[in-house]
Amino acid sequence: MYSDLFSQLDAGRLRHLITLEGLPHERIAALLDRADALRTASRGGTRTLDLLGGRTVINLFFEPSTRTRTSFDLAAQRLGAHVINFDIASSSASKGESLLDTVHTLEAMHCDAFVVRHKESGTPQFIAQHLRSGAAVLNAGDGNHAHPTQGLLDALTLRRQRPDTGALRVTICGDIRHSRVARSDVHALHALGVRDIRLCAPEQLLPEAGEFPDCGIFHNFDEAIDGADVVIMLRLQKERMQAAAIPSEAEYFARYGLSSERLKRARSDCLVMHPGPINRGVEIATDVADGPQSLILKQVANGVFVRMAVLAELLGADKAATMRA
Amino acid sequence: MYSDLFSQLDAGRLRHLITLEGLPHERIAALLDRADALRTASRGGTRTLDLLGGRTVINLFFEPSTRTRTSFDLAAQRLGAHVINFDIASSSASKGESLLDTVHTLEAMHCDAFVVRHKESGTPQFIAQHLRSGAAVLNAGDGNHAHPTQGLLDALTLRRQRPDTGALRVTICGDIRHSRVARSDVHALHALGVRDIRLCAPEQLLPEAGEFPDCGIFHNFDEAIDGADVVIMLRLQKERMQAAAIPSEAEYFARYGLSSERLKRARSDCLVMHPGPINRGVEIATDVADGPQSLILKQVANGVFVRMAVLAELLGADKAATMRA
Amino acid sequence: MYSDLFSQLDAGRLRHLITLEGLPHERIAALLDRADALRTASRGGTRTLDLLGGRTVINLFFEPSTRTRTSFDLAAQRLGAHVINFDIASSSASKGESLLDTVHTLEAMHCDAFVVRHKESGTPQFIAQHLRSGAAVLNAGDGNHAHPTQGLLDALTLRRQRPDTGALRVTICGDIRHSRVARSDVHALHALGVRDIRLCAPEQLLPEAGEFPDCGIFHNFDEAIDGADVVIMLRLQKERMQAAAIPSEAEYFARYGLSSERLKRARSDCLVMHPGPINRGVEIATDVADGPQSLILKQVANGVFVRMAVLAELLGADKAATMRA
Repeated sequence: MYSDLFSQLDAGRLRHLITLEGLPHERIAALLDRADALRTASRGGTRTLDLLGGRTVINLFFEPSTRTRTSFDLAAQRLGAHVINFDIASSSASKGESLLDTVHTLEAMHCDAFVVRHKESGTPQFIAQHLRSGAAVLNAGDGNHAHPTQGLLDALTLRRQRPDTGALRVTICGDIRHSRVARSDVHALHALGVRDIRLCAPEQLLPEAGEFPDCGIFHNFDEAIDGADVVIMLRLQKERMQAAAIPSEAEYFARYGLSSERLKRARSDCLVMHPGPINRGVEIATDVADGPQSLILKQVANGVFVRMAVLAELLGADKAATMRA
Repeated sequence: MYSDLFSQLDAGRLRHLITLEGLPHERIAALLDRADALRTASRGGTRTLDLLGGRTVINLFFEPSTRTRTSFDLAAQRLGAHVINFDIASSSASKGESLLDTVHTLEAMHCDAFVVRHKESGTPQFIAQHLRSGAAVLNAGDGNHAHPTQGLLDALTLRRQRPDTGALRVTICGDIRHSRVARSDVHALHALGVRDIRLCAPEQLLPEAGEFPDCGIFHNFDEAIDGADVVIMLRLQKERMQAAAIPSEAEYFARYGLSSERLKRARSDCLVMHPGPINRGVEIATDVADGPQSLILKQVANGVFVRMAVLAELLGADKAATMRA
Repeated sequence: MYSDLFSQLDAGRLRHLITLEGLPHERIAALLDRADALRTASRGGTRTLDLLGGRTVINLFFEPSTRTRTSFDLAAQRLGAHVINFDIASSSASKGESLLDTVHTLEAMHCDAFVVRHKESGTPQFIAQHLRSGAAVLNAGDGNHAHPTQGLLDALTLRRQRPDTGALRVTICGDIRHSRVARSDVHALHALGVRDIRLCAPEQLLPEAGEFPDCGIFHNFDEAIDGADVVIMLRLQKERMQAAAIPSEAEYFARYGLSSERLKRARSDCLVMHPGPINRGVEIATDVADGPQSLILKQVANGVFVRMAVLAELLGADKAATMRA
């Protein structure tokens, strides 16, 4: 439903980033390469680059998410951009202004990029389709649909640890059905050439049949994790637990949580990932989250560089990263 | 009540901008000229100027208004200033600190300009009269009194479209009685030399007799719009509708809304303006708001340049706009 | 309880600022000297220095305090740093993420300094002890424990007015028991060599016996203020009044408020200080707060320079302050 009417690409240039689905693999690899280059150029995020000097990035968050918003905010600031954090709760939206009127108003003030998070799938694309300027839209998470920068940062994190990605077995466990992270991760993993992807969820939280034709589908986590090189745990929205007919967090953890015991069924050097924020003792044990196999904080760190790369790419910034004078 | 004790001018220099009332017309024209110059110098808002480098602008909004606040925020950032968005709801105001104690505290931290919005008429002037430093006060809308940057941006928008402003007929329709926009627009239109201004409102929302001696007063919109070159529609505060003895939004639209049908009574090239946010189908029809005669988004765009001009003027920035190094 | 496991110093370098307690006096004096130097270098806060260009300062306020947060925000901006104001109410904290997971996540995005305010004593030190990076923690007020930048700014304000600090009699009056300001002020005053410190409170709000062995303890304000060179009034948290068995604000003012009448019992050039926000007519009379002996706004002004100094010191910025290009 998202691809028929809309292309993220404009004459070969990436104009928006709504989803990783359908994006050529070499383009995803190029974004990851650029993230690595920006890490170096910014000396790990400690030097401001001037790639987006004078540009304006507006964080348009209809769902609260300080974590993701802060990551985008820092990414834009470290590229020299002006940042506006548009707090929807206190905005004219509360005066009954429509979404598109808000967007067109902000566009009229000149905006180079909108970073959009919304609980309804499709909102970022809807905005992108109705823009009247050359602004770019970055999807920062829409409903169950996509969270492309999460997919990219997970791919970057994985690629840096295991450059030979084609040979990996990756298990994703949690509420697959409602997870935009899982969807974007699968696209990103395909781009990395990962062939052995296993999706594991309670039966009621499995995706629709046929949505992931190239992935193995499991509802027994012990089987799904067997021999895995990477396990990506998903955050449990607690209100989903009832839908999954699971009576308690303890029961969820027993069946779908990542304990150090269960992790032994994976390869001994298996990497552990989680998009955060984590529910300790619900989907992941504290000793695993904080243990040597965990990449959770590396994911966060890579998130800033990936978002710098996407902003720079969408806004057509010169490849030659320069320091602020 | 505002002019006796207070002058916005200090030895001929514009020190504060509280109202357009009484401001010499050539000074208003100079602000519009400067807005145009800043548009060019900032390349349409895409380059940061360094006119206010090191200066501090504090947005002091006692009423929520993300739209106007964002416009001021961008204006200040694009001139190189530091910006503080002072959220009154979460401030010491909630600890019972008085308005002036808050202002004097912020002044003591060094502040070059306060941008003030307040639901009570007179608050920005009250602040200006009690400042202890050389800070400037910009009124961003106070009660029913004034919204001078809205008046300026409307004048700029109109002047750019119809340079021969003296010959225009301008009709303003809506809740004139309670509208700070209408008041500032009338002053701005006078400064442009507009002689034929028509104010139209339901009887209960007309201004006090004698407040606008140079304007025609109407309560029949069909008559008021007849032959107009410009129609400025005002936002309906829905709680005012009852005061106006109008039973429904549909009834309001039928009598005071701008439909494409009614617009035909104006000149064929009549321009349509609205300060936003718009209530579609209440005071303006969607096809008119989005149609070729609408200047609504141009008003928004001009708002940023006007605010840059006012900030630069009040803060005594050099006329020679320079790019940030 | 705070000093056993933790040192703010790391090989002689000030790594965090959690409390002034135990900090060598010459180090406190050096911070005050640096504040004065930064005042000059920044031309009173009107020029941006580039000492912290590219650095990231995160304001992590778990208690609302626009006044202190704005002071830190301006201090960081005027040193050229990126600032993130992390609004805890709208953060993942509301998704149940633990404090340390939030901190480690922000650290992973690269953060040079956390400015922490929390209603629980010990939270900033707790964060400092669990950091995984080289980030600095600045305590912006924790429970009843400490508010070290308030102590420093009070010391700076006093030292600038009365360089011969050793000979002064300083009276602090209010809810001493629950006051982090009083505790940090006492440490700062000791560092200035003040020997005659008098603490005055209603009996129920006096500190535990023995907490301040070097201070005189009073519950009669008329006696405590006798011959004072400086009076520091504390803000009354109104919910404490009942605990103090004081039936009304008028009664509190009569016994513990600073009226111009009572001020006459002090030396004729006695200075008046208050950390703000003030309750006029409760702990201090309006004519005293606004009178010629009041240093209240000077305290606010000095707060920004002190915070610049602490940020520069903790982040290891070069002593040679340079202007932004």
